[in-house]
Amino acid sequence: MKLKPSPFAPASFPALPAIKGVQAATASRGFYAKRGIERDDVFLFLMPEGTSVAGVFTRSHTASADVEWCREALLQGKGSGRAVVVNAGNSNAFTGVAGVQKNEATLTAMVETLGVPKEQCFLAATGVIGEPLPDPAYVGKMLPQLNAALGTPDWEACARAFSTTDTYPKGAGTETEIDGVPVAITGILKGSGMIMPNMATMLCYVFTDAAIAPDVLDELLREVVDPTLNSVTVDGDTSTSDTCMLFATGSSGAPLIEDGSDPRLDAFREALYDVFRNLAHQLVKDGEGATKFVEICVENAVTAQSAKTIGLSIANSPLVKTAIAAGDANWGRIVMAVGKSLEPIVRDNMRIWFGDLLIAEGGLRAPGYDEAAASAHFAQDHISIRVDVAAGDEAWTVWTCDLTHAYVDINGAYRT
Amino acid sequence: MKLKPSPFAPASFPALPAIKGVQAATASRGFYAKRGIERDDVFLFLMPEGTSVAGVFTRSHTASADVEWCREALLQGKGSGRAVVVNAGNSNAFTGVAGVQKNEATLTAMVETLGVPKEQCFLAATGVIGEPLPDPAYVGKMLPQLNAALGTPDWEACARAFSTTDTYPKGAGTETEIDGVPVAITGILKGSGMIMPNMATMLCYVFTDAAIAPDVLDELLREVVDPTLNSVTVDGDTSTSDTCMLFATGSSGAPLIEDGSDPRLDAFREALYDVFRNLAHQLVKDGEGATKFVEICVENAVTAQSAKTIGLSIANSPLVKTAIAAGDANWGRIVMAVGKSLEPIVRDNMRIWFGDLLIAEGGLRAPGYDEAAASAHFAQDHISIRVDVAAGDEAWTVWTCDLTHAYVDINGAYRT
Repeated sequence: MKLKPSPFAPASFPALPAIKGVQAATASRGFYAKRGIERDDVFLFLMPEGTSVAGVFTRSHTASADVEWCREALLQGKGSGRAVVVNAGNSNAFTGVAGVQKNEATLTAMVETLGVPKEQCFLAATGVIGEPLPDPAYVGKMLPQLNAALGTPDWEACARAFSTTDTYPKGAGTETEIDGVPVAITGILKGSGMIMPNMATMLCYVFTDAAIAPDVLDELLREVVDPTLNSVTVDGDTSTSDTCMLFATGSSGAPLIEDGSDPRLDAFREALYDVFRNLAHQLVKDGEGATKFVEICVENAVTAQSAKTIGLSIANSPLVKTAIAAGDANWGRIVMAVGKSLEPIVRDNMRIWFGDLLIAEGGLRAPGYDEAAASAHFAQDHISIRVDVAAGDEAWTVWTCDLTHAYVDINGAYRT
Repeated sequence: MKLKPSPFAPASFPALPAIKGVQAATASRGFYAKRGIERDDVFLFLMPEGTSVAGVFTRSHTASADVEWCREALLQGKGSGRAVVVNAGNSNAFTGVAGVQKNEATLTAMVETLGVPKEQCFLAATGVIGEPLPDPAYVGKMLPQLNAALGTPDWEACARAFSTTDTYPKGAGTETEIDGVPVAITGILKGSGMIMPNMATMLCYVFTDAAIAPDVLDELLREVVDPTLNSVTVDGDTSTSDTCMLFATGSSGAPLIEDGSDPRLDAFREALYDVFRNLAHQLVKDGEGATKFVEICVENAVTAQSAKTIGLSIANSPLVKTAIAAGDANWGRIVMAVGKSLEPIVRDNMRIWFGDLLIAEGGLRAPGYDEAAASAHFAQDHISIRVDVAAGDEAWTVWTCDLTHAYVDINGAYRT
């Protein structure tokens, strides 16, 4: 089906910094072309020797063969990464031995064509789950063509090449410095359904030319992913293929950072967080059928995890999401979603705000409650919900979108 | 909004057995009448002295004032129950002190009008959460009128009087015997959204004229609720008001059962289970926007709880539910939902069936997979999904419905 672009789709893809040392190429193996869609369906990134890599993956117990390989490669390669190949159209999840064969064929082609060690090659795939693979070599055989096309990354083309139901290509980047040396960070990401990351979300690749030791890079990635990609949800369904990888080429000339507490990392850490948050927000804004962007802050929970659990309980509630879609300020459903989380709260001291508007306090509707003002807030396309659960002093913020007719349509027709 | 009846709505309300000792009445306090809907909105049941009662309630941490009172009354009254009053239109949840005042006013009216002890009076309410109450006496003042109208229960009228977005009144009953003496069981229940019971579901009242001691009745209720009402989900949203109560009047003349292992209870136990399962199925069939009834059996899990968790993960997945709505046999989403449950499974030994059709085995699509046959199964209005997770030998069955446009519509317009 032809998807209507998200109302949040930007007028154009952002200008993103080049990352010294990173080359890329895209190509078409015909998956989208056959469907009359003008879009490549596979990309390759190649990084120089000495590039550090960190990755976080779905916690799903039915993880794809690609995710299993990446975990293995990170161990074998001790955090060195040279290349990544990603294809859209088939997730290579629940494909049995054939899925492993496709990976081996792709890896062999990468080693032979690019001259890089196998354990420094990474894979991912996105599309229908359980669909048999046409031919184990169907991605590997693209390698010569991809290799020949390698050059400065066209981030937009790459972001398009791993899209599925995404309605716009998603990228973010920034420039910062380490010890006075300019370094850049650029990332691309795809959504758009089966999104409630439980470690990372769908597919996200971020690159920097900073020089960062693998264990520090891993620490940084886990640190930024938790309050960003791991704090968004579209539909509460965790993918079999969630993959988020961070590559550091070291080509900027900035000094190598080997200690996570090194103060020279402060600005970089903040810049990295900004890029991840930007990507996470784009993910939600292009959630399947999304018409509204919703920020949910839970305050005064007993732990940060408890605040997050409550936030996700609200964010995943179909009743809350359909009320938001309709612009109906049915705040009682937020109360329901807090309650069903089974997290510690003090019901009769709870407070709820929409934006700056106090909606409930002392365990009931606020005395100054104004239905017209509450509805006006819910009529906006950016909605802010704040809930004080009055049980402790920890907070967490999650982001989600609404649940609309378009979600039902898109997901009834995905395989057709 | 005017709701379209569920395609599963029966042509007429079933004929249900009378329960010796039970009287009932319904009345209108004007909630539906004001909206042009011909429906009473409050009911009263009155039982004779010596009636045993058991109840299970929502586990929500934002439970309604009515639920809190019922828990208290069960303790104070030591399992004796004489009367229950339920109203639709306002859930009395998150209503603060006013909610308690409404309960006290209703209980005072019940004590004065019916001449029964306060701790043997039970309450429930259903409707919008957090809506302030018009007047603490708004239910209590109906008691004289209800008392005057008491008579043999009109089960259908009672089932209509506590409906909200239900599109048909739901009841079930059966006759059995204890020690050769005929006894009857009849129950009514309402749905239809905010349904993923975590103890009981929404509002359900079941009556029998058997004579059963309170602790045995409590044991029986917990035993039958778990594989029935606690095994259905419409939208994964647990209500603040879930209440399920079982009254045993003892008026049948059957001997008093004081031990749960008494073999004279065998037929009754089975009959009770049948009534609860019937009601649970009706709940799903009238789930908001439902067009399909889905049974999900999870087999060979490590524990029954694990099987249930996996079953509910499938049943609550918006991607599975929208695929079912569209009749798209996208079985890979079942794999996803099994994986995201994080329960122990052996991915590469998993098997999936639709009805008798083997869809997947050995961790991938079955060799004989037939897309046309799979789609034909998904095109039916009764869908059976069976998943062998190959990790143990415990099983559980859950029931759900599909996620359709109508769910989005109903829940965008509920308060209007």
